[in-house]
Amino acid sequence: MRNNETVQALEWTGNALKVLDQRQLPETIVYDEYKDAAGVTEAIATMRVRGAPAIGIAAAYGVVLSVRKQYAQSNQWRQKVTADIDRLAKSRPTAVNLFWALNQMKAVLAKQLDNPLAAILACAEKIHRDDIAANHKMGELGADILAGAKGVMTHCNAGALATGGYGTALGVIRSAYQRERINVYAGETRPWLQGARLTVWELAQDGIPTTLIADSAAAWLMKSGAIDWIVVGADRIAANGDAANKIGTYSLAVLAKRHGVKLMVVAPTSTIDWSIDNGDQIEIEQRSQNELLPACYLEEDSLVSAWNPVFDVTPAELISAIVTERGVVLNPAEQGVRGLKNAI
Amino acid sequence: MRNNETVQALEWTGNALKVLDQRQLPETIVYDEYKDAAGVTEAIATMRVRGAPAIGIAAAYGVVLSVRKQYAQSNQWRQKVTADIDRLAKSRPTAVNLFWALNQMKAVLAKQLDNPLAAILACAEKIHRDDIAANHKMGELGADILAGAKGVMTHCNAGALATGGYGTALGVIRSAYQRERINVYAGETRPWLQGARLTVWELAQDGIPTTLIADSAAAWLMKSGAIDWIVVGADRIAANGDAANKIGTYSLAVLAKRHGVKLMVVAPTSTIDWSIDNGDQIEIEQRSQNELLPACYLEEDSLVSAWNPVFDVTPAELISAIVTERGVVLNPAEQGVRGLKNAI
Repeated sequence: MRNNETVQALEWTGNALKVLDQRQLPETIVYDEYKDAAGVTEAIATMRVRGAPAIGIAAAYGVVLSVRKQYAQSNQWRQKVTADIDRLAKSRPTAVNLFWALNQMKAVLAKQLDNPLAAILACAEKIHRDDIAANHKMGELGADILAGAKGVMTHCNAGALATGGYGTALGVIRSAYQRERINVYAGETRPWLQGARLTVWELAQDGIPTTLIADSAAAWLMKSGAIDWIVVGADRIAANGDAANKIGTYSLAVLAKRHGVKLMVVAPTSTIDWSIDNGDQIEIEQRSQNELLPACYLEEDSLVSAWNPVFDVTPAELISAIVTERGVVLNPAEQGVRGLKNAI
Repeated sequence: MRNNETVQALEWTGNALKVLDQRQLPETIVYDEYKDAAGVTEAIATMRVRGAPAIGIAAAYGVVLSVRKQYAQSNQWRQKVTADIDRLAKSRPTAVNLFWALNQMKAVLAKQLDNPLAAILACAEKIHRDDIAANHKMGELGADILAGAKGVMTHCNAGALATGGYGTALGVIRSAYQRERINVYAGETRPWLQGARLTVWELAQDGIPTTLIADSAAAWLMKSGAIDWIVVGADRIAANGDAANKIGTYSLAVLAKRHGVKLMVVAPTSTIDWSIDNGDQIEIEQRSQNELLPACYLEEDSLVSAWNPVFDVTPAELISAIVTERGVVLNPAEQGVRGLKNAI
C-alpha cells in the first residue's frame, strides 16, 4: 500500500511493515522494518509510530505478521495470535483506533477460515486504504468550514505521519490551503515536540509555510487576532462529543473560547468510542517523567519530579465542529456524535 | 554584597561583577567576571543574567564599572559614561527595572560630585540590598494571602536567580513553605526552560520539592483541583495593574479564571512603570526564532519560521493580587496600582 501524495509513516512491503522512526525526525529519515508482532508492539510503545489512526493501522499489520508467523509454525497458532493481539492492545492506552483495528482483525480471525492469510491481509490493507480515503473526505468537509479564515493553528501532529496518509487536522489544512492561501501556525507541543519536529516538517514537504510558536504563546497569538480556527485531531471521542487529544488541546480550547476562536476536531469515526458516555471515562496515558526532566534531576533522592500526562480531554461544549468521514457535527454539545453511529 | 540564604545570580567583588551564567544551569555552575559596562551589557543581552530585578541590579553595577574605568582615564568621562548607560538601556526592552535602576544611577551622577566613585557604588549596593529586603517583605505579605492553599503553580523563574536574592514569586513560595508544607508546581517555560532549568533547581537547593509540568499541561492540572493559586513575577506593571511577564503568563491567567484558581503577581515597585496607563503601551521583546526552531529549518529558503514573543501582558481584571514591598493591592482592576505610588 503506497500513498504517493504525502510522506508516509507506514509501508507494507509484502512481508514486513516498514515504520518511519518519527523520534528521529526532522534530522534523520530512517525506516525500521518489522517482521513480527512483537516488533510492531515495540514500535508503537516507543513512539516510533504515533498518532491514533497510524497506531491502529500499524497494529492491524502487526496481526498480519503474527498470523503469517504462527500459522506456518504451530497447530496452536490461534492462541499465539491471540496473545500477540493482547500485547499489541497494551502498547498504548488512550487511542481507541488501536482497539478498533484489533477488533476488526479479530472478527476476520473468528470466521474460522481454513487459511486465514489472504483475508487477514486484505482486512489490514482495507483499514489502511479506508483511512486515507477518510482523510481526503474529511479534508474537503473541513475546508468547507474554514472558508474565509485568514489563519489557523494546529497542535501536535495529526498529519500524514499520524495516519495512513494525508492526515486528519493537517488533511483539512492541506485541502484549505489548496483552495486559498491561509496562514498556518503550529504549537511546538511539548514534551515530545510533535509540532516542531513533525508538523512543520511535514507541511514544508508539501510547500505549505508554517509558523512555529511555543505552546504557551497561543493565547497571545489569539489575542493578536491572527487566527480564526484551531484545528486538531483526536485520540478518542466519547459519545457526547468530549474529545481526548494531545496534552494542551484542552488548554487551547479554553483559550479559544475567550478569544472568539473556534475549535475543530478532525477524526475518522474509528476514533469514536461508542461505549463511553463522556470523556471522564477515557484513560489518560501518563508517560515517564524523564521526557520532561533534565537528566541531573533523576537521582533517587531528587526533590524534583514531573507530572507528564500526554493527553487531556476537551469537553464538547468547547468544540465548534467535529469533522468525520461520515459527516460534520456542528456544536457537538447539543447532541453528541451519536447521530454518526449509523450514518453511511 | 553577599546574600547567604539563597543561590545568587550576582556578586560584586569590590572591583568586578560576577554573574552566574544561567544559560548553563542546572548542569554547570559557572560565574563570569565583568570589569566594564560593555561586558555587563553583553551579559544581560545574552541572558547570562535575566529576571527584571536582577537585570536592574546588574545594570547598576555596570554603571559603577563604567565610572571606575572612565573617571580614571578621561576628562570626557561623563560623555563616555552616558554612552555606556545608553548601551546598557538597550540590552533588553521589556523589564522596566532596568530603566529604573539606570535612572537612579543617573540621578547620583547628576549631583556633580568631584569624585563620584563612592556615591555611585553606594547607590548600586543600595539598589541590590533594598531588592533583597523587598523580596523578604513581599514573601511574608504573599504568604499571608496563600494561607490554607494546598497547591501553587509558578511560571518562569522569579526567584533568587532573577533578583538580588530570595526572589519575588519564589520568595512568596519560600515564605509560605516555611509556614506550612505546600505542593509546588512549575511550568517548564519554553522556549528558554527557566522553569525546568532554574526554578526547580533553585527550590531544590532550599529543600523545597517541586513538580515540573509541560506548559500546556497547566489547564489539565487546574482542572484536577491540585492548585489554588498561580504565583508569578512581573517585568513591567502599568498604572492600571496590567502586568507584563514571561510569555505564557497571560495564558495561565485566562485558564485560572475558568478554573477558579487565583493569580498573584509579586514584584517590587521598581517594576511599576508609572508613565503608562495600561499594558498596551508595553514593548514586548521578540527574540530570535532560533530559540524555537530545530537547526534544520534555518536555511534561507525554509518554509518554516517561528514567532517568538518572550513576554505577554495580563490584564488587571485577571489578577487577584499584586504584592509589592509597599503593600498588597487586591483586585487591581478596581483602582490599578496608583495607590502605591506615594505609599511608604
